[in-house]
Amino acid sequence: MSILVVGSVALDSVKTPFGKVDSVLGGSGTYFSTAASFFTDVRLVAVVGEDFPAEHLDFLRSRNIDLSGVVAAPGKTFRWEGEYGYDLNEAHTLDTQLNVFGSFQPDIPDNYRDAKVVFLANIDPELQLQVLEQVAHPELVACDTMNFWISGKRDALLKTLKRVDTLLINEAEARQLAEEANLVKAAQKIISWGPKRLVVKRGEYGSLLFSEHSTFAAPAYPLESVFDPTGAGDTFAGGFLGFLAATGNLSERSIRQAIIFGSVMASFTVENFSLERLRQLEYIEIEERFRRFKLLTEFAGLDN
Amino acid sequence: MSILVVGSVALDSVKTPFGKVDSVLGGSGTYFSTAASFFTDVRLVAVVGEDFPAEHLDFLRSRNIDLSGVVAAPGKTFRWEGEYGYDLNEAHTLDTQLNVFGSFQPDIPDNYRDAKVVFLANIDPELQLQVLEQVAHPELVACDTMNFWISGKRDALLKTLKRVDTLLINEAEARQLAEEANLVKAAQKIISWGPKRLVVKRGEYGSLLFSEHSTFAAPAYPLESVFDPTGAGDTFAGGFLGFLAATGNLSERSIRQAIIFGSVMASFTVENFSLERLRQLEYIEIEERFRRFKLLTEFAGLDN
Repeated sequence: MSILVVGSVALDSVKTPFGKVDSVLGGSGTYFSTAASFFTDVRLVAVVGEDFPAEHLDFLRSRNIDLSGVVAAPGKTFRWEGEYGYDLNEAHTLDTQLNVFGSFQPDIPDNYRDAKVVFLANIDPELQLQVLEQVAHPELVACDTMNFWISGKRDALLKTLKRVDTLLINEAEARQLAEEANLVKAAQKIISWGPKRLVVKRGEYGSLLFSEHSTFAAPAYPLESVFDPTGAGDTFAGGFLGFLAATGNLSERSIRQAIIFGSVMASFTVENFSLERLRQLEYIEIEERFRRFKLLTEFAGLDN
Repeated sequence: MSILVVGSVALDSVKTPFGKVDSVLGGSGTYFSTAASFFTDVRLVAVVGEDFPAEHLDFLRSRNIDLSGVVAAPGKTFRWEGEYGYDLNEAHTLDTQLNVFGSFQPDIPDNYRDAKVVFLANIDPELQLQVLEQVAHPELVACDTMNFWISGKRDALLKTLKRVDTLLINEAEARQLAEEANLVKAAQKIISWGPKRLVVKRGEYGSLLFSEHSTFAAPAYPLESVFDPTGAGDTFAGGFLGFLAATGNLSERSIRQAIIFGSVMASFTVENFSLERLRQLEYIEIEERFRRFKLLTEFAGLDN
């Protein structure tokens, strides 16, 4: 199955203790699409400005990503400037220029409307709803959100969540959304509002998958060099949904494997700035790292 | 095999968002011994003051812990007062009264000197060395330490580490000790100084076990109610070493299981103040939670 993703395509300027880059390719839609493209066909809906370098579109096309939903609008591309300290878990936003993204109204092309798997990246929950209204019969809808929408558009977000199967957010966002400090209780509360499952992203500490009857904990891959965490969450989502769309299997077994594929993709992304590591990545490396996750986490039970 | 542990026996006053307790049983030696006592025989070396309630000694005896190395000294028992916010990962020390613990000189009773498994809880690294000089031929020596000794008695600590098989410290301490922000590199550095393996404790994020050729990641058990994290690290060590001492098996397989038993014991400890949860605990609950850790972490490989 192919995936429809609606998100941002951006030009990022990022500083970490290990270096800095200016106006490089970024954006939730970009990271997600690229990660998912290792597993399945991806259809991207986004907006770019007149200043957006053609080479970036060429790169996305080279990953076989369908760009017929990417609109070039008059004005400048969305720009984000951020900085990370040695605690790479937290980004400090220095500047955000929404530019053409500020008036983004996602219009789903006809040839996308039969999408079975949909990812709504971190955009205004009202737009997320608009997207869902344009998709005929999705079988799996996942979405991301952030503190800004949780506090500013709570009602719209709760409406969106009623139509979402899987919510992927970070730990602080889960607590904020549920208004509950304990993560297990927060997850139960969020699941009672609609989503079948909640993926809590914890950066270098991995992730937790909560569903009604089961909890799964996955570590992050311990890396010797983490250069830039930007895009880790979106590539996680790309690996997760990419694998599920490729197999079409939504069993607990498959969903747990998908969490690991998400973790694998995130672990590659942070090894270099922007999408540099993903540009070099071969599928065989993805499977190799999946196997390393297995070695990293397995232990003998009491009965074997 | 039985375990020799040298550590503190204390009276703690603790405040968390969920309640407060005054002058309750605490101390690294206490938490460790009690956790390890579910697996094997424990011999405790510690000092208490004249004010130490006899009922606490009775409790430790009821756990079959050998107290012939616990000295009652003139003066008051070591007292610690601490507070936790909603971020239960970090204790804020309000007051420390070393009292009789300030002049503690561990004297290992003759009947303890043949100990094969030794745990040096977080005490002055010079005292840790003194203990090792009094033990004939230990097969497994583990120790803990803290920021205070890492910065204040670095040379003595490095000397101790040369004679230690397993170092158990928290994440910030590992970075501080190695003077290296990246945890994987920090672990490699510490292992090059002597310890065969390093256990990095990450509170609610679980733990990482590093050895020369292998890394193992274990989550913490996601709990619906965490009351008081005091003693979690020491009960982790107690479950870890208790299991290893009971089986006498130091294979990678056994050590990974021991990490899970450590995680299990820590997960019970934090469910109530002081040692209240461990007082009520039955061994069958430990095995039950071990099985839940298995369910929490397992996923299918690519080839099965």
